Amino acid sequence: MNSKNMRGRVTIPTDLDVVPQTLEILKKWGADAIRDCDGTDFPQELKDADAKIYSTYYTTRKDNAWANANPDEIQQMYLMTPFYSAPEGALRIELMKGLYPDMLKVNPKDKERWWEVIDRTAGTVVPVSEWTYNEKTGCVVIPGALPFHSYTVSFLAFIMWDPVHMYNAVVNGWKNVEHQITFDVRQPKTHEYTMRRLRTFIAEHPYVDVIRYTTFFHQFTLVFDELAREKFVDWYGYSASVSPYILDRFEKEAGYPFRPEYIIDQGYFNNQYRVPSKQFKDFQAFQRREVAKLAKEMVDITHECGKEAMMFLGDHWIGTEPFMEEFKTIGLDSVVGSVGNGSTLRLISDIPGVKYTEGRFLPYFFPDTFHEGGDPVKEAKVNWVTARRAILRKPIDRIGYGGYLKLALDFPEFIDYVQSVCDEFRTLYENIKGTTPYCVKTVAVLNSWGKMRAWGCHMVHHALYQKQNYSYAGVIEALSGAPFDVRFISFDDIRADSAVLDGIDVIINVGDGDTAHTGGSNWEDPAIVAAVKRFVWNGGGFIGVGEPAGHQYQGRFIQLADVLGVEKETGFTLNYDKYNWDSRAHFITEDSTDIDFGEGKKSMYALAGAEILVQKDKEVQLAVNGYGAGRAVYISGLPYSFENNRLLYRAVLWSTRSEDKLNTWFSTNCNVEVHAYVKNGKYCVVNNTYEPQTTTVFRGDGTSFDLALDANEIKWYKI
Amino acid sequence: MNSKNMRGRVTIPTDLDVVPQTLEILKKWGADAIRDCDGTDFPQELKDADAKIYSTYYTTRKDNAWANANPDEIQQMYLMTPFYSAPEGALRIELMKGLYPDMLKVNPKDKERWWEVIDRTAGTVVPVSEWTYNEKTGCVVIPGALPFHSYTVSFLAFIMWDPVHMYNAVVNGWKNVEHQITFDVRQPKTHEYTMRRLRTFIAEHPYVDVIRYTTFFHQFTLVFDELAREKFVDWYGYSASVSPYILDRFEKEAGYPFRPEYIIDQGYFNNQYRVPSKQFKDFQAFQRREVAKLAKEMVDITHECGKEAMMFLGDHWIGTEPFMEEFKTIGLDSVVGSVGNGSTLRLISDIPGVKYTEGRFLPYFFPDTFHEGGDPVKEAKVNWVTARRAILRKPIDRIGYGGYLKLALDFPEFIDYVQSVCDEFRTLYENIKGTTPYCVKTVAVLNSWGKMRAWGCHMVHHALYQKQNYSYAGVIEALSGAPFDVRFISFDDIRADSAVLDGIDVIINVGDGDTAHTGGSNWEDPAIVAAVKRFVWNGGGFIGVGEPAGHQYQGRFIQLADVLGVEKETGFTLNYDKYNWDSRAHFITEDSTDIDFGEGKKSMYALAGAEILVQKDKEVQLAVNGYGAGRAVYISGLPYSFENNRLLYRAVLWSTRSEDKLNTWFSTNCNVEVHAYVKNGKYCVVNNTYEPQTTTVFRGDGTSFDLALDANEIKWYKI
Repeated sequence: MNSKNMRGRVTIPTDLDVVPQTLEILKKWGADAIRDCDGTDFPQELKDADAKIYSTYYTTRKDNAWANANPDEIQQMYLMTPFYSAPEGALRIELMKGLYPDMLKVNPKDKERWWEVIDRTAGTVVPVSEWTYNEKTGCVVIPGALPFHSYTVSFLAFIMWDPVHMYNAVVNGWKNVEHQITFDVRQPKTHEYTMRRLRTFIAEHPYVDVIRYTTFFHQFTLVFDELAREKFVDWYGYSASVSPYILDRFEKEAGYPFRPEYIIDQGYFNNQYRVPSKQFKDFQAFQRREVAKLAKEMVDITHECGKEAMMFLGDHWIGTEPFMEEFKTIGLDSVVGSVGNGSTLRLISDIPGVKYTEGRFLPYFFPDTFHEGGDPVKEAKVNWVTARRAILRKPIDRIGYGGYLKLALDFPEFIDYVQSVCDEFRTLYENIKGTTPYCVKTVAVLNSWGKMRAWGCHMVHHALYQKQNYSYAGVIEALSGAPFDVRFISFDDIRADSAVLDGIDVIINVGDGDTAHTGGSNWEDPAIVAAVKRFVWNGGGFIGVGEPAGHQYQGRFIQLADVLGVEKETGFTLNYDKYNWDSRAHFITEDSTDIDFGEGKKSMYALAGAEILVQKDKEVQLAVNGYGAGRAVYISGLPYSFENNRLLYRAVLWSTRSEDKLNTWFSTNCNVEVHAYVKNGKYCVVNNTYEPQTTTVFRGDGTSFDLALDANEIKWYKI
Repeated sequence: MNSKNMRGRVTIPTDLDVVPQTLEILKKWGADAIRDCDGTDFPQELKDADAKIYSTYYTTRKDNAWANANPDEIQQMYLMTPFYSAPEGALRIELMKGLYPDMLKVNPKDKERWWEVIDRTAGTVVPVSEWTYNEKTGCVVIPGALPFHSYTVSFLAFIMWDPVHMYNAVVNGWKNVEHQITFDVRQPKTHEYTMRRLRTFIAEHPYVDVIRYTTFFHQFTLVFDELAREKFVDWYGYSASVSPYILDRFEKEAGYPFRPEYIIDQGYFNNQYRVPSKQFKDFQAFQRREVAKLAKEMVDITHECGKEAMMFLGDHWIGTEPFMEEFKTIGLDSVVGSVGNGSTLRLISDIPGVKYTEGRFLPYFFPDTFHEGGDPVKEAKVNWVTARRAILRKPIDRIGYGGYLKLALDFPEFIDYVQSVCDEFRTLYENIKGTTPYCVKTVAVLNSWGKMRAWGCHMVHHALYQKQNYSYAGVIEALSGAPFDVRFISFDDIRADSAVLDGIDVIINVGDGDTAHTGGSNWEDPAIVAAVKRFVWNGGGFIGVGEPAGHQYQGRFIQLADVLGVEKETGFTLNYDKYNWDSRAHFITEDSTDIDFGEGKKSMYALAGAEILVQKDKEVQLAVNGYGAGRAVYISGLPYSFENNRLLYRAVLWSTRSEDKLNTWFSTNCNVEVHAYVKNGKYCVVNNTYEPQTTTVFRGDGTSFDLALDANEIKWYKI
């Protein structure tokens, strides 16, 4: 243990019932910040401790008096009913059916302008003269509905119970809790009131050092069904950031008439898989600008009152978009976020334009883990070791824990383990700081979202598992801890200036065909196709995972079939005989045994000339191809694992004709990684597993030595 | 053995070297027809035998003198080069690269009109002024090709070696064989010559009773690569039925300008998976009319000369389309075809408008089966038992064998087995004739092709296996022997008059999304959607297999999601929580254990309200749903097996609320089937396996009895 690293960079929770213990933990873990407890008075002993005090602040809720007095400025959201049809006669659609009644209240004001009834069978909007809304029954009636045509109603509703508050109430079984209403800070009265409210709060909490905003104005999309079960969730959803007031302003700025469908998007709500429309991209840009402007106002007040402003990357974070230009203008001091894995770590640590970032680690000190028989040490280890890979590439500046400290105190082994994590973190931070770790290549993930969805580009609800995405999210997770300079670029970036590809060694395109991730109709744009093909032809690498460039158009499904050397059998090419089925050994698979392709892909076949590395039952899982001076690699899916991480690493090297760079800052055992901080004269070797490992470590000059590491161990060396 | 059935309905091959044996076999098998041998003189002993004599006749080849003297009337085909691109400067495309050089000869005449150079990246036609063709090098040159755009050339070539003749030469290793050139009977000089040639042939073969046409004018698409390997095959392909002469006439009739792309279809050549364009459907209709007209001329001559006209359903059958209206006008006496399974049997036996049909059974008397250690009996059993199910539903009128009789003579067990087959066939024919077997329901397969592809709707190259289609072809195979009245209808049929659905109990839609089989953009037509939904709502059954009605449009992938109760997760609905995962026991699966869904489908999920019968790892394989008075069944795939045949049978009964009809002409053991011919007062019980079986047989009145059957046995009963 390094005594100079014994203090700092750690935040802990507290509570009124554990004041002396808080002081003890502060000392033991070397913490220098305390999260405010939710009570009334903050204990003097903690005020006197040598630690910053954070206070959570909700801009949009916890003030029902205001909300109830200003019902017109309660936050609204767009909703779409399911599809309904009638065999004959009038069709009645009950708007709130399937929705939790206490959470939402239909807003029929100016419904002719803000609602849309759509015949989804014909794909046409039903004129407002052809439907009515009955406020008493809550039903839209379409007297002349066409038999067996399916109709939907897009409508606005007030958010009468903040979705996160409701979630907490439901999960924790809170009874008789007053439903916190969400108000819309961006509307005139609430805007003015909010600034006063913030000043009052700060004045009443003089001991607080850091205002931790949770977050600003708009909740990500979260809707519950009649049984209070989650019905729809999109951590990136913008559908709860709307109101006639906002949309009116958007329409004026955009210069074209607004349509609910721009938000509703056929009921898909512009989720991350959807190739975004121009209108939705316009709307997001509008929201970014407007949210940043108002958030800046709050941050300025915070600073004026002598406090720091910290943003929690979650809950009401919609519109802030930390990787976009507008974010910097907010002037925040810091961002804190929850760390689930390497990708979510970098979702925080890569944010530019703030003074520091903080990661909140798992497990929360909640009864689900901290109960008799629970194993919080195991959870903590998994969380720390998984995230550590990413920290070693781009560290957060602080770590922290949340929940009820009292619960953790009953687990002395856990207290000891976190102490070791805090020390380990401080050591590595010290060794890393101010430098960029050795990057063997610059790798760009190309999709429809680019940097706006950096690191989060395969997330649906933060880092939660989805059967349909883990085989793709695995690529991003591998990258989060890999020795690459990682960029996220969009098709729009290429369209704007194909020079965005300069300096990039490898382009990666990951996902299913006809999704925003692989690009869909973007591949009908010759400018995109030519730019990417030129990039590879001139020596660039291309790695496609899943159905890269997959979009049926002009005789191809895989639009880069000539680059990748693979095509998908959709039935349209069954008439063509396929003779290329032999697989062979290759540089890329040298460390692999039975490769886990996750969900993989069906019906992929290799074109003549491509080399198959793995095919299963005549479905190609892994293949390589040359294109001009460049090289391309096709992988059917790549869930995160140390073996697959190594495979991706080798694919990057091979695709850039850099096989000779393999033994540079490298561990032969794929469970162990090497990170070098040349400017600081340091490098480390890190065991990512929970068992001891032996390996051969290669230094930057190609010299090597054998090494044995304990479980999870990290060893630091001087260069 | 029934002595009255000892003779007739059987055709055998012969050869000069086995004349006495032919007479023996004629007697032993009770054959009444002999296929001409390929030699010069036909033996008098066989002329004198009491048997019809068939003679194979090729209208389009075996006359190189004529072809060489009239090179302008050699048959042509459309071809498309692969995709080519250049990083800069002019692009040269060598037309014959990748094609077998002796088979095709580029026809550059009027290339400005009949060829097309397409920029597949931009999706635009390159003006004829912007490319040239160099006859010496065989290259198209595009001086101003855009960098990294992919180009293709669509061009015409003469068929200098008949593809089937080439196939036979390659497979049998024939050396120094003169390449038979294909001439185009539909062009003026050859037309006139052909009619004379036919008359001469008949005059020179007075002993022949039946002219067996192989077939008329146009070979299905069959192309070979540089190594003489099959490169492209489409048993339904029309790309070798073209020539400027024909296309010019088509253009005049259609009333719009012809484009090569109507045939080329992005290189997919309008294969069966492609939702057919209006222009291709127009072209097919034109070909049907024109081919029928000319074929009739030949049939009329045949009749005039006192002979029968038989058509072989294969080789040059393109444009005849036996299930379409025009076919009847040809006036053929009969059709003969190769029998691979139940579907191919009904492809022949269901043909309307001919006096009789004949099935050619396997194995051919070729050395690949008839060699020392070969087991022709086994092959014959499999072929017979597989096809027998279909014969029992709709019998062919004759059976036959082909190949070298000499080879078969060395296998006395085989000779005996075929004798028993011939007797069994004559008995069942006698019992069945003139009646329609008991049909529990009328079932319609709905796709883009309708009756034109009846029974063949999932075939690529006749009955050959394809990994991508066996899970769908299995449904058709099951239907070929099932107690249903089976129809094949198209979306155009519904558009023309939705009364086509009257009298149908169950609609079946089978295949992958966005294929002609499931309908693709047809589901954007409200008339189609409303007609099908109305049908089910009013009590009809709907069975969807694979991705039925699968086409991304207006918030749905499965366009009949509300009918079927399932949707496909394309990523677009990952945000919606799914709670319906429990599977349950059901009438449909009562006889099933571990159901084989073949390739199955990934990512299908059930909507609320649907009942899941089988899901694997949260991917629904089998589900049912109510819709109005109707019922729908979703199945992810259904390869042919006796268990799956039973599952489909139960699905049909359940979807029509006819569970109570189960024990009607029914065998509890799914390896055994019961067919009833009520009008004839007969029914049979048939063991479809090669092992003995026991079962309980239910008669039409619900009474039952237990029964033990020998392997393959068929037992006949009186009602």
